[in-house]
Amino acid sequence: MNFASILYILGTLIEVEGALFIAPAVVSLFYRESEGFIYFSFAMVCAIVGRLITINKVKKQIYYAKEGFISVAFGWIIMSVVGCIPFVLTGEIPHFTDALFETVSGFTTTGSSILSDVESLSHCSLFWRSLTHWIGGMGVFVFILAILPKTGAQNMHLLRSESPGPDVGKLVPKLGDSAKILYIIYFAMTVLQIIILLIARMPLFDAVTLTFGTAGTGGFGIRNTSIAEYTYIQQLIISIFMILFGVNFNFYFFIIIRHSLKEAFKMDEVRTYLAIIALSTAAIMINAKNMFESVSDGFIQSFFQVSSIITTTGYSTADFNEWPALSKVILVSLMFIGACAGSTGGGFKVSRLIIMAKAYIRELMHFIHPRLVRNIYMDDRKIKDETVSGVMVYLVSYVLVLMVSLLVISLDGFDFETNFTAVMATLNNIGPGLSHVGPAGNFKDFSILSKYILSFDMLAGRLELYPMLLLFSPGTWRKK
Amino acid sequence: MNFASILYILGTLIEVEGALFIAPAVVSLFYRESEGFIYFSFAMVCAIVGRLITINKVKKQIYYAKEGFISVAFGWIIMSVVGCIPFVLTGEIPHFTDALFETVSGFTTTGSSILSDVESLSHCSLFWRSLTHWIGGMGVFVFILAILPKTGAQNMHLLRSESPGPDVGKLVPKLGDSAKILYIIYFAMTVLQIIILLIARMPLFDAVTLTFGTAGTGGFGIRNTSIAEYTYIQQLIISIFMILFGVNFNFYFFIIIRHSLKEAFKMDEVRTYLAIIALSTAAIMINAKNMFESVSDGFIQSFFQVSSIITTTGYSTADFNEWPALSKVILVSLMFIGACAGSTGGGFKVSRLIIMAKAYIRELMHFIHPRLVRNIYMDDRKIKDETVSGVMVYLVSYVLVLMVSLLVISLDGFDFETNFTAVMATLNNIGPGLSHVGPAGNFKDFSILSKYILSFDMLAGRLELYPMLLLFSPGTWRKK
Repeated sequence: MNFASILYILGTLIEVEGALFIAPAVVSLFYRESEGFIYFSFAMVCAIVGRLITINKVKKQIYYAKEGFISVAFGWIIMSVVGCIPFVLTGEIPHFTDALFETVSGFTTTGSSILSDVESLSHCSLFWRSLTHWIGGMGVFVFILAILPKTGAQNMHLLRSESPGPDVGKLVPKLGDSAKILYIIYFAMTVLQIIILLIARMPLFDAVTLTFGTAGTGGFGIRNTSIAEYTYIQQLIISIFMILFGVNFNFYFFIIIRHSLKEAFKMDEVRTYLAIIALSTAAIMINAKNMFESVSDGFIQSFFQVSSIITTTGYSTADFNEWPALSKVILVSLMFIGACAGSTGGGFKVSRLIIMAKAYIRELMHFIHPRLVRNIYMDDRKIKDETVSGVMVYLVSYVLVLMVSLLVISLDGFDFETNFTAVMATLNNIGPGLSHVGPAGNFKDFSILSKYILSFDMLAGRLELYPMLLLFSPGTWRKK
Repeated sequence: MNFASILYILGTLIEVEGALFIAPAVVSLFYRESEGFIYFSFAMVCAIVGRLITINKVKKQIYYAKEGFISVAFGWIIMSVVGCIPFVLTGEIPHFTDALFETVSGFTTTGSSILSDVESLSHCSLFWRSLTHWIGGMGVFVFILAILPKTGAQNMHLLRSESPGPDVGKLVPKLGDSAKILYIIYFAMTVLQIIILLIARMPLFDAVTLTFGTAGTGGFGIRNTSIAEYTYIQQLIISIFMILFGVNFNFYFFIIIRHSLKEAFKMDEVRTYLAIIALSTAAIMINAKNMFESVSDGFIQSFFQVSSIITTTGYSTADFNEWPALSKVILVSLMFIGACAGSTGGGFKVSRLIIMAKAYIRELMHFIHPRLVRNIYMDDRKIKDETVSGVMVYLVSYVLVLMVSLLVISLDGFDFETNFTAVMATLNNIGPGLSHVGPAGNFKDFSILSKYILSFDMLAGRLELYPMLLLFSPGTWRKK
């Protein structure tokens, strides 16, 4: 294990995070909040510590996939630990475990909260909380790759460990350029959403923070009622942008760089994703019709909640915990499915679902015609058997983490619906679940142990399980 | 599709079932119950109908895996439809849907019931209800193969479609002999359990019917409180036999035919199975200790419920719905795991779990050492990659059926815990779930649609998904 190299990367990370703390410090100036001083001082501390760690260049250049996974896993843990300290220092979230849970929830773009009164936070803390979503959405290592001139094999390993989806393709030959293109698209769409929300008469602070939450598919709101108090038109804008940020970013690459709408819409994943959204919205509109005042109200509410859950954002405009059973089961299914690969969303990913479904049909056909060899295609490209078995093993890991987490948090004695959806909501980076952790509830009553387990689940979900699982695997640390 | 051949097999099945109806008719003579007349007359009807169908020998001998699956799927449906008619005719279960649910539950060895007052049934109906467990446990086609002199490729296909587990091996070169050995072991163990229960002072009728339910890992009791009213010693005997019937029958083959205890206990599956039982019992004893009167009471109750759920029997001596959350989650996990392959139990099967776990560890190791090729072994034999991917696809099918069933039965508006465990309990052929369908509840309040869906799940679970899924797959019926 190349520890020097890993340490260097972690040092860089702390430096970058120090720079990011300047943002909430600036926000505090507008609102004349004393908390900004803490953010500013802490930014300095991070800059110094980070610089001290990275002061020596690393000589040893051996860097394998293993180091990539471990750097990313440690990186995200360190980032969360550092990121939660201002919450503790300002006294706004006094307990470390709670502050860590909230920050992990932020960076992993989950949006589960232990706060029952969000509105009591200072503006700069609210801003920082939402900014973590924006950073976590595209990935902090992608960010580092995009802004820093770096070369070497380590970059691909880092990017691969951090990016969501079964198979990461480079968009353009040079990796740093890929990262740059991704961040430019991400940044442009963020600015676009802020402008449109401003046009729809949303206040600037709300527009910026809610856009951060949308872009990262995070879901931290700045009001206790999440998005429910905003106008229909503002809700609709957020819905549409949630869906856009849940799309595989290759889609935008095709449109913007290659100018090919046809190629973009040929993507099986995007079409399936949009079809699932349309069908689920329609099903809930019909099933929960008694909960809505009118057809248009029903459409907006169903559409918003479906978009929010499938993209794993977790904003809400309705307490769907009160909806009829079928609607709730549809939402739980969407929690599992998640957004597209290569988007900022979490969950199992639509492309994995497609690969799984196709492998499944192939296996069924195999029973009927045992001698027929069939290949699986997605976007007209043949899918390798390795990818198929990778997806299957991913499902196994997923079920495993789900079961173990469920067992441990059951110790707290909440009902099955709470426990099951709490794990689903964190492991898939959604935010709210059902029952106690529904849109009207929060995660504060869980025990400290459960909060750490759920924090682990959020990180595992965001990093697609393996980096976090490898961290706890003895084989990783064994010397050859 | 060779319809003539399938029809011939179904005809044989109806004849055999006609012969089986004689058993409850004989029981009715002892208790002087008029219902016996209905069983006797209906036995005659079945014999005549079956004979008429099979009067012409089938000429066309082409018979592929496809025909095997379809014969088995239709066979089990026909068997259940025919088997439920006496319940309707005697008026003891007046509605056809309910009677069918109960009979499917019997043959599939599930043990879920729509009856709230079991004790009101006649002795002959109780006997028939329990006998369906015994027949379904080892499989009706295995039964036909064991008793009728038949040859041809169709037998292997039938046996393979009906037997539980990822890979069916022939015990001895001749298939009919394998079936005979299986049934001899099954029969001998059944007689042994009846004798031991009689020695433990259980009345004969109780001993026979409860043994049927144990042997088939079914779970229909003959009292409203299931097994709770019997003595500790009787409960313990039933626990141990549940575990024995949940063991892979190859285990007994090694002991009885090959006289090798060493070979038997070398089986990874059996050792894992016993370890899971021991660990779960211990965990529940500790977690639910406030529910028990003493340590020995805690042991018996935990051990009984664990044995009952993991073997997918579904007898109960306690209302585990009242147990603390962790204990309930352990039981739900056991529902999923199920018994050993090649036993009469249902569920995902311990051997699949082992293969999955090993494939999973291999994949994790692959991240660390990408160039290392590792094989997976069970019982010191290499497991083929096909088997591994077969297990994965099985999991996918399983999750798929689970999700779709959950969506449909949610329409009835029960709580999530009821819906989720109702599907788990039927798909894994267990019997009771939690909440409304817990040990103190039953399935009668579900809608007709839900009862059909859950009946489908029971059949799908018992036949290991594929026969039932192929029945509804357009590819099966398409002409080449």
